[in-house]
Amino acid sequence: MPEKEKLSIVVFSDELDKALAAFILATTGASMGMDVSMFFTFWGLNILKKNGGSAGGRGLMKKVMNFMNRGGSKRLKLSHFHMFGLGTAMMKRFMKESRLPSIDEFIRMAKDMGVKLIPCSTSCGVMGLDEGSFREEVGSLAGAAFFLNEARQSKVTLFI
Amino acid sequence: MPEKEKLSIVVFSDELDKALAAFILATTGASMGMDVSMFFTFWGLNILKKNGGSAGGRGLMKKVMNFMNRGGSKRLKLSHFHMFGLGTAMMKRFMKESRLPSIDEFIRMAKDMGVKLIPCSTSCGVMGLDEGSFREEVGSLAGAAFFLNEARQSKVTLFI
Amino acid sequence: MPEKEKLSIVVFSDELDKALAAFILATTGASMGMDVSMFFTFWGLNILKKNGGSAGGRGLMKKVMNFMNRGGSKRLKLSHFHMFGLGTAMMKRFMKESRLPSIDEFIRMAKDMGVKLIPCSTSCGVMGLDEGSFREEVGSLAGAAFFLNEARQSKVTLFI
Repeated sequence: MPEKEKLSIVVFSDELDKALAAFILATTGASMGMDVSMFFTFWGLNILKKNGGSAGGRGLMKKVMNFMNRGGSKRLKLSHFHMFGLGTAMMKRFMKESRLPSIDEFIRMAKDMGVKLIPCSTSCGVMGLDEGSFREEVGSLAGAAFFLNEARQSKVTLFI
Repeated sequence: MPEKEKLSIVVFSDELDKALAAFILATTGASMGMDVSMFFTFWGLNILKKNGGSAGGRGLMKKVMNFMNRGGSKRLKLSHFHMFGLGTAMMKRFMKESRLPSIDEFIRMAKDMGVKLIPCSTSCGVMGLDEGSFREEVGSLAGAAFFLNEARQSKVTLFI
Repeated sequence: MPEKEKLSIVVFSDELDKALAAFILATTGASMGMDVSMFFTFWGLNILKKNGGSAGGRGLMKKVMNFMNRGGSKRLKLSHFHMFGLGTAMMKRFMKESRLPSIDEFIRMAKDMGVKLIPCSTSCGVMGLDEGSFREEVGSLAGAAFFLNEARQSKVTLFI
C-alpha cells in the first residue's frame, strides 16, 4: 500500500480568518486522503485552549500573559476590521450564512478526520502552558525538530 | 518535453507590501520558466477587485462588508506604518524611484507572463463576491481542493 | 556523499515573535544536518541591521523611512500585545526564563551553525539599504531569482 501524501501546516496566529484558512485547508486535505498535521505555535496555541478555562500558568507574569491570551476557539478575532467586535461578529454571521463550520466545529471535524493537532512544546514553555491547558482533541506536545522532520516528508508545507 | 516546474502562492493579505512580495516572486518565477499560480483568499481578494467598482454583494451585511473592503489594487495599504496614508504614499514613491511596477502593472504583467490569478471560491462565498467582482485578468474561481492539488505538484508553495 | 537537504525560510516581518519562530526553525534545521538559508525581505531586513547604527540611506524620504525602521535585533516588537513595550518586555523575560536565546544570540548562533543570512536585494533597493547597513554575520545580497532557485531545491520552504 502506498504511503499517504503528507500536508503540514504551522498555525502561528490566533486570528479568526487565519485559523479558518488553516482548518479549511487541513480538512480539505484530509478529505482528499492526505495525512495532515497542524502545528500550533505562539498565538496559535490560543485556538486550542479549553473554552472558558484558564490555562495552568505558573508565576505572576505568566498569569498576566495568560489573562491577555485567554484563548479558546470562541474568542478569536479578525486580523482586520475587528472594530471592537463588530467586524468579527459579522464574519461569524457570514460563516454561518455560507454554512461554514465554526472554529469549534472545525476542531472536532478535523480530529474526526484524523488530522493531528500538535501544540509546539517550545512555545508552550515560553507561554507557561502544558498539556492540561488544551482541549481533549489535542495530541501530545512536540518541538521544532519533530515538525521539520514531518515537513521534510511532506508534499505541501504551509506557514499560516 | 519535460513538464514545467510549478510555483503556487496563496495571497491571504491585501497589504501593499505582502502583495508586492507575492507579485515579485510570481513574475520572477514565470521569467525563470516556472508554471505559476496565485490563489487569492480572504483579504487577498481585494487586490483583484475592479478599481473603483463596488462588488456585487447581496444583503445589507454584505454591503457593509463590501464597503469596508472596497478593494482594487490602488487602495492597498502597508502592514506597518500606514500612518493615515503617509507611510503608504512614501512606499509607493520608493517603488517608483526603484523602478518597481505598481500592483496594477504587476497584475497585468503577471497575466501577460502566463501567471494564473485564481480567486478562492470559499472566501468569495463568505465575502459575497462572484466572478463579476473581479478585473478582467482574473481566471475562474476555484476551491481549496483545487489549490491543494496544485500545491502537491509544486516544487515551491508559499502562503503569504 | 549525499547532498544535504535544504531548508529555505523567507523572513518578511520584523516582529519579535515571528523572528523567534524563524530562528528556532533555522537553528533546529541546522542541528538536524540541514543546509539552511534565511532570506530577509521588507521589514525582515530590520532584524539584520546594525544595532544602534543608522542605515546608509540616500535622500530625505529614505532618511525618514530609515528613522521609522531604525531596526537592529534589540528593537523588535511583538505582533500582538506590544502595549507600549510592556508585552514585549514580558515576552523577553519569558524567553530568558525559558532559557531561549535572544534574537541577537540567535543571529550569532545561526551564523556559527552555517545558516546563511541573505538580505533581499530588491527590498534593499526600495528601502535604501546596502551591504554596509547590516551586521557582520550577514552574507551578500541576493534577489528573488536566487531565492526561488534555492527554494525549488529545498525539501521545506517557509514564508514567515
